[in-house]
Amino acid sequence: MITPQEVIRKKRDGHALTHEEIAFFVRGVTNGQFADYQATALLMAVLWRGMNEDEQRALTQEMLRSGVTLDFSDISQPKADKHSTGGVGDKTSLVIAPVAAAAGLCVPMISGRGLGHTAGTLDKLEAIPGYRVKLSLAEFRAVLERVGFAMTGQTDKIAPADKKLYALRDATATVEAIPLIVASIMSKKLAAGLDALVLDVKTGTGAFMREEERARELARVLVKTGNSCGVRTEALVTDMNQPLGRAVGHALEVKECLEILRGEAHERALPVRELSLQLTARMIRLAGLEATNEAARRRAERALDSGEALEKFRQNVEAQGGDARVCDEPSRLFTSAVREVKVEFTRAGFVTAVDAAEIGYAVSSIGGGRARVEDEIDPLVGFVAEAKHGDELREGDALGILYCRDETQAAPAVARIRAAYTITDAPPAQPLELIKDCITA
Amino acid sequence: MITPQEVIRKKRDGHALTHEEIAFFVRGVTNGQFADYQATALLMAVLWRGMNEDEQRALTQEMLRSGVTLDFSDISQPKADKHSTGGVGDKTSLVIAPVAAAAGLCVPMISGRGLGHTAGTLDKLEAIPGYRVKLSLAEFRAVLERVGFAMTGQTDKIAPADKKLYALRDATATVEAIPLIVASIMSKKLAAGLDALVLDVKTGTGAFMREEERARELARVLVKTGNSCGVRTEALVTDMNQPLGRAVGHALEVKECLEILRGEAHERALPVRELSLQLTARMIRLAGLEATNEAARRRAERALDSGEALEKFRQNVEAQGGDARVCDEPSRLFTSAVREVKVEFTRAGFVTAVDAAEIGYAVSSIGGGRARVEDEIDPLVGFVAEAKHGDELREGDALGILYCRDETQAAPAVARIRAAYTITDAPPAQPLELIKDCITA
Repeated sequence: MITPQEVIRKKRDGHALTHEEIAFFVRGVTNGQFADYQATALLMAVLWRGMNEDEQRALTQEMLRSGVTLDFSDISQPKADKHSTGGVGDKTSLVIAPVAAAAGLCVPMISGRGLGHTAGTLDKLEAIPGYRVKLSLAEFRAVLERVGFAMTGQTDKIAPADKKLYALRDATATVEAIPLIVASIMSKKLAAGLDALVLDVKTGTGAFMREEERARELARVLVKTGNSCGVRTEALVTDMNQPLGRAVGHALEVKECLEILRGEAHERALPVRELSLQLTARMIRLAGLEATNEAARRRAERALDSGEALEKFRQNVEAQGGDARVCDEPSRLFTSAVREVKVEFTRAGFVTAVDAAEIGYAVSSIGGGRARVEDEIDPLVGFVAEAKHGDELREGDALGILYCRDETQAAPAVARIRAAYTITDAPPAQPLELIKDCITA
Repeated sequence: MITPQEVIRKKRDGHALTHEEIAFFVRGVTNGQFADYQATALLMAVLWRGMNEDEQRALTQEMLRSGVTLDFSDISQPKADKHSTGGVGDKTSLVIAPVAAAAGLCVPMISGRGLGHTAGTLDKLEAIPGYRVKLSLAEFRAVLERVGFAMTGQTDKIAPADKKLYALRDATATVEAIPLIVASIMSKKLAAGLDALVLDVKTGTGAFMREEERARELARVLVKTGNSCGVRTEALVTDMNQPLGRAVGHALEVKECLEILRGEAHERALPVRELSLQLTARMIRLAGLEATNEAARRRAERALDSGEALEKFRQNVEAQGGDARVCDEPSRLFTSAVREVKVEFTRAGFVTAVDAAEIGYAVSSIGGGRARVEDEIDPLVGFVAEAKHGDELREGDALGILYCRDETQAAPAVARIRAAYTITDAPPAQPLELIKDCITA
């Protein structure tokens, strides 16, 4: 008979666990055979010793098996999705989903809420008046069939072991273990019955994986695990050394995405458009709709430039109960008054570094994010970054505009944003590269 | 404010914890601020990353402070004790305590129960009809004052954090972490208000530290921690590649010790006498009664050879409620019938290796030990080893005699003992060395 101690000891000593031992662990965490205090010791041992490919697949599959899997095989379009490891101003889902649907994919997107310095797709969607993100499975399927993409939240029925394990990881500083991150992400993505998955692994000052080598390693393991579990998977390793695009904050980010879908993107928002197209193109190719990245890219661009993606977005908003007039008038997102505060910098020079997480925390501190899961969000506050990495600023130039409810209360956030920028006399040695690497199977 | 996550993260990343963080951990484990599932993650991180001297001292002191400390400062003799990390046939406490008392030391010995392949001093003493090991603190002090040594069990009041932590370590394969072993041993020993402490760190097939280098490392940390906490501490690293002496089993081991105290030791039991004298001599010197190991050794030998130690033992047995007639007639320990089964080996050759733990488990399997803490012990069963490492055996020579209740039921134990011996045509490359190293401050 397997005992928790034996499993912990084996991993502690650097040995590989069998599929049976991993299954015992995952089931045991849910049914109590593996006490919480034993599970966390094993989690720390996994953070220490890692897992090999077989263990990684077994852990992912057993976490998947802890819950239900969705079956969209009766929908004829290939099923594809994108997942980002999270960043500041990282809003590509809102562009990718409608573009991919317009390009002929079925996108069953199960998203999350924001926490800490990053915002969540569900919270952003809720900035659209009336938009419902809590769909029943039947509603989710109906929207998916009608529109081609649907957005909903994680349910307790999908990979419940992950929910339990995540809470334990969060309480024990074991969130960062790559095998646990991979199993958590992939078990939920596999539950949606995908054919293809593209991962956006962020690295830099606003990412969970600040170090690029760790991000590459995570990307490699994600891709390997996805493919070994039968989903065609690729990953881009992308820059998160400054907010992506201009907007940070829920309504502001939806507005930026609508402007992209409407062909009215601000020049500073073009990286959002670019990254969205690159990720969507890979979804299209991996799902088998096109043979090359180039053809897939053209297909994605057509879907966007033709207005079809905007139309898909409008259909989705209508189907999920939202006020679709925001698609024509993005300013409708701003349903109550906010104050705009110019964030100035006191000296001239070049922007050579941006602490993106600090900007996320600053926005969170004025209501635009959550410190704890139970916190309420104010969707209208946020920050629009004018100064980007490499820009030359004159004295008194704006770093950006803070959208807040009260200028006095916002003063600490202003100071925090200002401190997030490093301005030097010399320009940065080299520009930031949006896409740092592409990891394929 | 310190949080458990922060403390875990710091240790996980290989940084040293502050005294304040360690105090928060030890208090938190008892008062609930540090949840069990957080404590075990930290325990695994400590097993992984280790602790430096300052951390080690802080952990030991905080575990000590979780409970009461005894104060025997009104007893004029220097207070000294010995602690062994445990082995098979490891019975020196029963010789050391009376010899040390007869030599002028005060020995407040707080001992443990047996578990797994090793037996405990308390269980052995209970093989003496009527002997009481559960003394109140007042009784303990009274026996100590009257006799010079007293034997009792760990109470809930001494280092309660250790009891909690030990249970968590046992359930999570973190027992082996040296910083945790050291804090556990030393916090309890420091609670007895000692002036001097000698540690017997066992290594080999019957020891918890099978590898000699690990045993040396444990000894070094124990000695360093003891001295840094104000107790003069030394350690011997000693051989546990075969049972110590001849006897394994509770009554059999008491009998062997009584024979040593009576000057009637069997030749094969002389290593018990030798190790006891060496350890006692160091206690005597560290406690300041003699200036050199040689003088201390002579003093210990006089205490033993003069019969004074036997007299101390008799006084202790009387004071703790036991039948002191065993001191004159050790066979009185055998209060009911046991069967003697000769364990033969099937081929001639040299004893080149003995798996001492297997012998311990074999004796445990016929009632002479505990698999679980709640198991009852049969004090009269056991094994008397005739063949020792390096012996040349002829076909049919006995490896030893198994004392059991039923020959048929004992057959698996006989087979297990037989399998514990490696007999080869050539003699072992070198003899075992009883004392492998001496670690001083």
